[in-house]
Amino acid sequence: MANLLRATAAWGLFSCRGYCSRIKQGKLSEDFVEALKAVVGSPHVSTAAAVLQQHGHDESMHRCQPPDAVVWPQNVEQVSQLAALCYSQGMPIIPFGTGTGLEGGVCAVQGGVCFNLTHMDRILALNTEDFSVVVEPGVTRKALNTHLRDSGLWFPVDPGADASLCGMAATGASGTNAVRYGTIRDNVLNLEVVLPGGQLLHTAGQGRHYRKSAAGYNLTGLFVGSEGTLGLITAATLRLHPAPETTVAATCAFPSVQAAVDSTVHILQAAVPVARIEFLDEVMMDACNRHSKLDCRVAPTLFLEFHGSEQALGEQVQRTGTIVGHVGDGNFHCILLVDPEDTEELRRVEAFAQQLGRRALALHGTCTGEHGIGLGKRQLLQEEVGAVGIETMRQLKATLDPRGLMNPGKVL
Amino acid sequence: MANLLRATAAWGLFSCRGYCSRIKQGKLSEDFVEALKAVVGSPHVSTAAAVLQQHGHDESMHRCQPPDAVVWPQNVEQVSQLAALCYSQGMPIIPFGTGTGLEGGVCAVQGGVCFNLTHMDRILALNTEDFSVVVEPGVTRKALNTHLRDSGLWFPVDPGADASLCGMAATGASGTNAVRYGTIRDNVLNLEVVLPGGQLLHTAGQGRHYRKSAAGYNLTGLFVGSEGTLGLITAATLRLHPAPETTVAATCAFPSVQAAVDSTVHILQAAVPVARIEFLDEVMMDACNRHSKLDCRVAPTLFLEFHGSEQALGEQVQRTGTIVGHVGDGNFHCILLVDPEDTEELRRVEAFAQQLGRRALALHGTCTGEHGIGLGKRQLLQEEVGAVGIETMRQLKATLDPRGLMNPGKVL
Repeated sequence: MANLLRATAAWGLFSCRGYCSRIKQGKLSEDFVEALKAVVGSPHVSTAAAVLQQHGHDESMHRCQPPDAVVWPQNVEQVSQLAALCYSQGMPIIPFGTGTGLEGGVCAVQGGVCFNLTHMDRILALNTEDFSVVVEPGVTRKALNTHLRDSGLWFPVDPGADASLCGMAATGASGTNAVRYGTIRDNVLNLEVVLPGGQLLHTAGQGRHYRKSAAGYNLTGLFVGSEGTLGLITAATLRLHPAPETTVAATCAFPSVQAAVDSTVHILQAAVPVARIEFLDEVMMDACNRHSKLDCRVAPTLFLEFHGSEQALGEQVQRTGTIVGHVGDGNFHCILLVDPEDTEELRRVEAFAQQLGRRALALHGTCTGEHGIGLGKRQLLQEEVGAVGIETMRQLKATLDPRGLMNPGKVL
Repeated sequence: MANLLRATAAWGLFSCRGYCSRIKQGKLSEDFVEALKAVVGSPHVSTAAAVLQQHGHDESMHRCQPPDAVVWPQNVEQVSQLAALCYSQGMPIIPFGTGTGLEGGVCAVQGGVCFNLTHMDRILALNTEDFSVVVEPGVTRKALNTHLRDSGLWFPVDPGADASLCGMAATGASGTNAVRYGTIRDNVLNLEVVLPGGQLLHTAGQGRHYRKSAAGYNLTGLFVGSEGTLGLITAATLRLHPAPETTVAATCAFPSVQAAVDSTVHILQAAVPVARIEFLDEVMMDACNRHSKLDCRVAPTLFLEFHGSEQALGEQVQRTGTIVGHVGDGNFHCILLVDPEDTEELRRVEAFAQQLGRRALALHGTCTGEHGIGLGKRQLLQEEVGAVGIETMRQLKATLDPRGLMNPGKVL
């Protein structure tokens, strides 16, 4: 159990769509709204209550806090002009992709302008010889893999939701394939970023898509996982992988959670090249049986997937035949059903989430393996990285965003 | 050829040991030297000319610029006290490991105190279940793998030299195994860093060694490759890998460089899980034949290595049997023999190195795949990341090192 917990904890909570605590309106001057419209055109600016509400929450339990306006820039030049306009007016900027986050990262805690980037949905370049692709923020994981279908390549990072790839970079996404292919962090080669004041930064230099570099400070790494608090990601250069020739799946039930975790450690120590290992406990297995009308054994269960050539997979599965689910990289989720109208239940769930995070920290783990810090885990982050760590992050934030307008109230 | 060059360029140049351009001495006050001795003890401070000279260069062609004193701290508390002392006195700080760098990173261009960290050589923790180890700066790559011999685990990042692992983290080292195991960047889980003023930072939180995290800004990534310009790395938590059951090597000669490079791209596109792919041109093959009394064909040649189980390797080699040199990750080195006394030859070599870097940049590559920027590639870095990139790096540097005393004159 220690191994499971030592690693990382994250949790997805039931959606709170539809109950917003407040809709602030009329905060923006008419002049300011006109200035936004002058950049992107009238149809691409909205201050309608329903639109604001829709942009004030993600799929987590965090209460909706709508922005004062939503803009849909059509290209990076517009993002840059809008950012310069907002920054000069002291207006908070909140980047928005598919809204599938789980840490309240898009809540407009101080109001401001939400930048919905989904209209920028082009695949700007595909380099099959160099295994790289450049995507705008509106391109989702599934859209990219559909585009790649006949290329022999694919993008394996899979957090479940059909998220925006740039949003995945912003939140440090991971998912079930991380055992073999790494997380989004390992697969971003370059980012185009609009800095708070509107300047355009290419974290690894314009147009570059090399596999490795030792050239100066790792700006790409700094912006991956920064949750929109340092700038707006307007394009990501991603590393692609050869599509597996064959995929084989296996499941195995265990008498206890400990036995399943011990087996995971043994599989990894034996260098069995597994692509995914997912774990479901007996309660989740029971729920899956009911939902999908299955007849699986109600016991702690590992789900494994192997990618490779037919012959190699035969051997891998044969090894893993007698022993053998995100446990492969030590990440687990607790999914709790919650009645959002029941404040007492919400309180208990929040307390449980904090407790779970502290348990992971006590075992030398992290409070968030993916989805980021957002609103809910700021206290846990302080406990995780310590006073000097937080102070260093604050200094970096203040350097790049001196007025504190980029997605305020998140992370720090 | 484009593929080879597009990727990354780095070069190692013949050692310049033994010819120092200047030995500055007597710059330090007696009081200051006494204060250094009070922290680490008299035997662990030296201002002897030969010692200073020995610490003023690495294995590159960059001219030796010795520090004003060398200190050998015995533990992190002493590093912290020494750094606070130097910083308060406006004295530059230059971290020193094994001195095997190739970009002049240890040259004391403004004088100052060299911190030789090799006396801190403990392996502080080994977690075989979590595949992690914590090492001090005096632990080299080979020393770690000797220690791990019976554990079933190993640390695969191999830049050739038996470098300090913390030094490898500081310079963003890579090497021949990067195709399969990634570079040092992919294998550092946490760093203990003494900040310029003496404060102790744990980039991923104290004692943490998780595989992945989305917790706040990626400080670990920022310090990896920062070349001692943001702080002193006093311990590194590294990711270990299962030792391969079997290793198989293969070589293949090609009619041209282009044919060898095209084959590399095909091997990688076919997802053949090769661990190393190294390329030697015909001139290098001829030199190897003469040096090692071999009888290899004098032609562009790829060297491949496969890691895995016996059965899986049989299949991999069978695929790669008909076609099959750091080309696997697109990194290459030019090794030039140079007479350090011949200034005209030195000038020509420097011009060639700049030209080579520019060629890589023109092909969307990087001027340094490993070894970092150091002294020689600062102009190329500007060209690579552009004005906003350099300005962002300058701001980060100024934030963490406001007096500009950490390894001055490097990178920026």
